[in-house]
Amino acid sequence: MIATGSIRAASETGDALLLTPGPLTTSRSIKEAMLHDWGSRDAAFVQINREVMERLPGIVNAGATHVTVPMQGSGTFAVEAMLTTFVPSDGEVLILINGAYGQRARKILEIARRRTVIHETPEDTPPDLVAVERVLASTPSITHVFAVHCETTSGILNPVQEIGALAAKHGKGYLIDSMSAFGALPLDANAIHADAIAASSNKCIEGVPGLGFVICRKDVLEAAKGNASTLVLDLHDQWTVFQKTGQYRFTPPIHVIVAFHQALTEFFAEGGQPGRGGRYTENCRVLVEGMRALGFRTLLQDQLQAPIIVTFHMPGDPRFDFQRFYDALKERGYVIYPGKLTVADSFRIGCIGRLDRTHMQGALAAIRDVIAGFGMTSAAMAA
Amino acid sequence: MIATGSIRAASETGDALLLTPGPLTTSRSIKEAMLHDWGSRDAAFVQINREVMERLPGIVNAGATHVTVPMQGSGTFAVEAMLTTFVPSDGEVLILINGAYGQRARKILEIARRRTVIHETPEDTPPDLVAVERVLASTPSITHVFAVHCETTSGILNPVQEIGALAAKHGKGYLIDSMSAFGALPLDANAIHADAIAASSNKCIEGVPGLGFVICRKDVLEAAKGNASTLVLDLHDQWTVFQKTGQYRFTPPIHVIVAFHQALTEFFAEGGQPGRGGRYTENCRVLVEGMRALGFRTLLQDQLQAPIIVTFHMPGDPRFDFQRFYDALKERGYVIYPGKLTVADSFRIGCIGRLDRTHMQGALAAIRDVIAGFGMTSAAMAA
Repeated sequence: MIATGSIRAASETGDALLLTPGPLTTSRSIKEAMLHDWGSRDAAFVQINREVMERLPGIVNAGATHVTVPMQGSGTFAVEAMLTTFVPSDGEVLILINGAYGQRARKILEIARRRTVIHETPEDTPPDLVAVERVLASTPSITHVFAVHCETTSGILNPVQEIGALAAKHGKGYLIDSMSAFGALPLDANAIHADAIAASSNKCIEGVPGLGFVICRKDVLEAAKGNASTLVLDLHDQWTVFQKTGQYRFTPPIHVIVAFHQALTEFFAEGGQPGRGGRYTENCRVLVEGMRALGFRTLLQDQLQAPIIVTFHMPGDPRFDFQRFYDALKERGYVIYPGKLTVADSFRIGCIGRLDRTHMQGALAAIRDVIAGFGMTSAAMAA
Repeated sequence: MIATGSIRAASETGDALLLTPGPLTTSRSIKEAMLHDWGSRDAAFVQINREVMERLPGIVNAGATHVTVPMQGSGTFAVEAMLTTFVPSDGEVLILINGAYGQRARKILEIARRRTVIHETPEDTPPDLVAVERVLASTPSITHVFAVHCETTSGILNPVQEIGALAAKHGKGYLIDSMSAFGALPLDANAIHADAIAASSNKCIEGVPGLGFVICRKDVLEAAKGNASTLVLDLHDQWTVFQKTGQYRFTPPIHVIVAFHQALTEFFAEGGQPGRGGRYTENCRVLVEGMRALGFRTLLQDQLQAPIIVTFHMPGDPRFDFQRFYDALKERGYVIYPGKLTVADSFRIGCIGRLDRTHMQGALAAIRDVIAGFGMTSAAMAA
């Protein structure tokens, strides 16, 4: 059952398994949905797209209050669209940063000339909620709070519910980047007082990349007219056109959207968020236990670890060479990811995509095999 | 050989044929290229993307002078990226408008707070080059000229070479939206003095939608640092990262790019621009001759008609009902397009995509059949 050095792991379509923060391994049926052509203004495609848009808010219990506005491009296109549509030119955003995606939001807002206040903690540390409340209480000019749900830089789970409670208490708008968590971790848009939640097609819903989306509180979106500083990233304008015609303003990535429709069908067939999240949680448990048994150490304490992507410290053993480790795993059919941390030399292994515990066990067998090839029996620090 | 009312036309994958301005009918092999998953930072995908970027400038004879910067999203994302990357905040653009895409560029520039000067002609009329030169000579504050190569609103071919000569004579930058013409019509970026040419994956190269690109004069791109007013649409920033890492800044639409790679392979196998343009020219000739034989009239004089999409006047016969005409053609496997003109009540039929003269003959037979069903023997005006 477990792949060994002589057996190359492969997805349903013969590809290496992507144990990365995305793009991910997707099912064969999701990719096969792309084997057709549709007219972008034709009724059949318009109906497929409408179903995609209608299914998404329910995943975060927001069917009655929020609407979906899709934004073609990667997740960052959706995040920039969210920030520049909801934050007016005279707005001011408290950005909670503990990784690359918080930093990216800061850059977006600075380029768009929106004022920012930064609360930054190290990549392995959640925001300090006492300090956050102090800033909110003492800075009335702040109009919005921005947080990253699961910061894929480290895999840390940020306390989006507690942050939302503070934002609501102080009357601030609340914008969330839930890119790598949406659909896998429980999230209730109303309970956490979210005005908008950005995510993308190719994370936990397991579609192919090319489409982002923002789940927007309807009354807040309606009030956002004229905020945007671009044509293509204006969610209010796109939403207005959808209401009139059910169509995109500009040619949509049709094949990506049809694949996403199939991905949502498979997501609900798996039991929606509880089912999808349950599989990922089991993947994560198998991975972490197995890696610890091999002597690897996780960056994060278990209670901070989201079941999305796990950061491991680089072993101190001089026989361990990351590039050779990466290449040997890829040869065996497993693609992992280098770390992007400043706090520690590290690498990352993802738990999401069309993977189950058998794939994680296969990856562990391959990792054992590769470090044995380095002459190591354990990745534990010699010290 | 010719489809009749009882035979439904279909593409290689069983879909209705798209005789529209795009998205288009694509080959089966282009769509089959999407049946795999790749890591976005993995060497195999990085090489595929590099080949895509390297192949494009040669199509407009710019391999030595220009580079490709891809921009995910529809063609409009590429046009907005081009305009906001190349035109600085204190720039001023002479926009030549004779259709919806010229109007769209105006809207983009107004939202981005770049100054504009408008030269507008009716949708069936090319710009007045004498007037254009007068504006350029009398308005030294103009920094750039923007033109649309083939304006798909009507299908008109604009004189991009003559416009470029005027821009060069007066020392202005020159930016072109060649969306629906790129790859089908001859275009020499240097002969026409183009600083940048925007196009997309799903027009005459016949890929699937989701990727735009801008062919940029290298030295002009290098000088464009800091112009952009967004993060995601900044072509200079994306180009800088490509030079360092060969990678996208943000998760790219991998499947769309791999399909585009296959589309380029098939494009060059067909003989590049002369081959592709030759097939479309023949499609257009068969279509226009056949429609005229049925009594339909084209909007444009033949010398203004690009072999991309043809606008026909709506027949005056009260028995002709466009919605029934559209639906009946779709039932027979042919999707056409309503007109978007202000100058005339009209509809459009495209000549591009994976279509040849046999498909156009089939469409003509279906059209003959449908109007016969309306009790009409000819679409000629009764008057």
